[in-house]
Amino acid sequence: MNKPISSRDVPHGFTFASTHCGLKKRKLDLAILVSEKPAHAAAVFTTNRVQAAPVKLSRTHLEKSANAMRAVIVNSGNANCCTGPEGFAASRQTAIDTAKQLKCKPENILVCSTGVIGAPLRVKNILTALPSLTASRSAEAEAFEEFSRAIMTTDTLPKRAAAKFKLGTKEVRILGCTKGAGMIEPNMATMLAFIATDAAISSSLLARALKQVVARTFNAITVDGDTSTNDTVSLLANGESGARAITSANADYNKFVAALETVCRSLAIAIVADGEGAQRVIEVTVTGASSDRAADKIARTIANSPLVKTALAGADPNWGRVLAAAGRSGVAFEPERVDITLAGVEVCRRGREKKFNERIAHEKMLAKYVPIRVNLRSGKGRALVWTCDFTTEYVHINASYRT
Amino acid sequence: MNKPISSRDVPHGFTFASTHCGLKKRKLDLAILVSEKPAHAAAVFTTNRVQAAPVKLSRTHLEKSANAMRAVIVNSGNANCCTGPEGFAASRQTAIDTAKQLKCKPENILVCSTGVIGAPLRVKNILTALPSLTASRSAEAEAFEEFSRAIMTTDTLPKRAAAKFKLGTKEVRILGCTKGAGMIEPNMATMLAFIATDAAISSSLLARALKQVVARTFNAITVDGDTSTNDTVSLLANGESGARAITSANADYNKFVAALETVCRSLAIAIVADGEGAQRVIEVTVTGASSDRAADKIARTIANSPLVKTALAGADPNWGRVLAAAGRSGVAFEPERVDITLAGVEVCRRGREKKFNERIAHEKMLAKYVPIRVNLRSGKGRALVWTCDFTTEYVHINASYRT
Repeated sequence: MNKPISSRDVPHGFTFASTHCGLKKRKLDLAILVSEKPAHAAAVFTTNRVQAAPVKLSRTHLEKSANAMRAVIVNSGNANCCTGPEGFAASRQTAIDTAKQLKCKPENILVCSTGVIGAPLRVKNILTALPSLTASRSAEAEAFEEFSRAIMTTDTLPKRAAAKFKLGTKEVRILGCTKGAGMIEPNMATMLAFIATDAAISSSLLARALKQVVARTFNAITVDGDTSTNDTVSLLANGESGARAITSANADYNKFVAALETVCRSLAIAIVADGEGAQRVIEVTVTGASSDRAADKIARTIANSPLVKTALAGADPNWGRVLAAAGRSGVAFEPERVDITLAGVEVCRRGREKKFNERIAHEKMLAKYVPIRVNLRSGKGRALVWTCDFTTEYVHINASYRT
Repeated sequence: MNKPISSRDVPHGFTFASTHCGLKKRKLDLAILVSEKPAHAAAVFTTNRVQAAPVKLSRTHLEKSANAMRAVIVNSGNANCCTGPEGFAASRQTAIDTAKQLKCKPENILVCSTGVIGAPLRVKNILTALPSLTASRSAEAEAFEEFSRAIMTTDTLPKRAAAKFKLGTKEVRILGCTKGAGMIEPNMATMLAFIATDAAISSSLLARALKQVVARTFNAITVDGDTSTNDTVSLLANGESGARAITSANADYNKFVAALETVCRSLAIAIVADGEGAQRVIEVTVTGASSDRAADKIARTIANSPLVKTALAGADPNWGRVLAAAGRSGVAFEPERVDITLAGVEVCRRGREKKFNERIAHEKMLAKYVPIRVNLRSGKGRALVWTCDFTTEYVHINASYRT
């Protein structure tokens, strides 16, 4: 992840621009991703009952024009959430003004925001900056790199990923970036991801591919179990690669899904690796459950357990906490059948401690990437979830007073 | 809570003893609570799918002899959990040997353990200490105070509570103590509570009273959302007060329940106040929900949100995190109707920020006891949950390597 992006990675027909409009003190806080031709679009949004104005607006725009999307306009520094009718009007005006610049309809624009919840959005700043922002757009890799920085809040680094694949003789590109460090951050909110591809693919297949891939990538990560009010993953496909169109769930579609999954997995793991205060990425695999759903529930309970996550911060092979977290997940299983390995070391067999070298286990757990494998030996259900360890730094970041 | 216990608080016919048997390095680690006559008993146990040997054994003993319980024997320093058939045999032998000393049957004994999960219990130490332990028992307040210390693990102080009430001319006493700081601690596990009363009350009414009260007290607290494998609340009633027997759910029963609730609430809040690293107790009240169950789900999601709890550590009136946690609870409600107060300051009205003085709110939130009130304005359901704030000290305690 975060390999340098070259201009050859940028899907044809996409441009990017960023600026500082004054929502943050100094840093880039407004960015736009444009498809120069109408693109097919798909997006997934937060499942939080509390949803930000831009999420509500973008949802309706996607319904109206999934086959003719032109741009995503994003601000950081303010989530425009819990801001009432004025907040919704601010998002709508942003879409209207952006559409004017791009000579399209407001419903051809997706709007995203990330930042403080509850504070009114100074939309004037955005509207004033829009004309020069859109005029400065470029297909250079640098423009995309700036875009990936402009959407950051407490992220310590930008998160980008690219993939290419061939259909016949033509190359197709998928390029994405994301932001997010806590699911909801101090006051900054949100996980956002923006993906562009020059594949030609119908919007219904695009939606299907995105849903399928997001379930295995962005929805398989957790930093603190808190779901933001603004979460959005958007995917625009403009067909500018010149490759043949993907019109059914055939081998071409499978190639597209595989490349999309590569990009989304990279971005998702990059979020966890940049999790607030995180030292390491934890990969929790649960197998042998009665169903995939049961496995997922157990994997998430383990991945969100403060006691498991603090033990991982200390590289402590405290498997009792892993088993106890599984036990409170609400899923039925036989503790006496469970095997557990931590960082490749078998620590629990059939629900009891297996003699292991604690020093070696501890040292292995100091790695940047630590797998936890739990086998319930009671079925074929399986799940994979990524998380990070839980350090004092997380608390420092989130307990520091906002102002 | 933790007012000094006087000998007049000790229910008639109960004795206590404690000793150091070598499970911990130096501290008291074995204790017994004895009813000199057979007592009616009730208990509630952990709902974790992974259950320690003493929990499994005590459950069967309670089924067999809820009308003739004689004692509770408790060790700290080892949870005797995930220890296989040897672990279960160790708990059973402890009951058998204790019964010999008290000249009763093994099923008249409840067994509790708290400490490391997965390590074999050195039961020899317990069995060797038992004769002198039981011989040294006493009805003095000091013996009870020692008992309340012997059950501690990472607790920073013992937690005791007492209540008295009159039935006719006779006084009835309820005395209890508890331990627990993380729901599961570093390697030490468990919330345990032991309550004794000299009320005369049938075991079925006793079970009903305990279930009712535990739902509103011990089950309404959360430190980290992690449920232990050993949690047990036991209640013994031996009728030695001489007061008239409580044989139906009448006014006498209500007096008993009220006194029991006073004791359990004190003990439960004492656990939260002693939560690992906690600076303050947070009382989360949710009203106006569609049902009590819905209110409870929202209150628990708020109380377990790392982002809410770290904001509280910083005394930050970050109400957006409270509303966002409610939003991801899985309960349907209208965000636009929600009112929120933090430490008595109205910060959100109808889902939007209400202008408030941040400095004053911040100062009020520095208190030892901070109420959060969320009114959904959509029904009559309500719930009350206690938790503590989430500090770097919690992470320090739980990330420090075990050995």
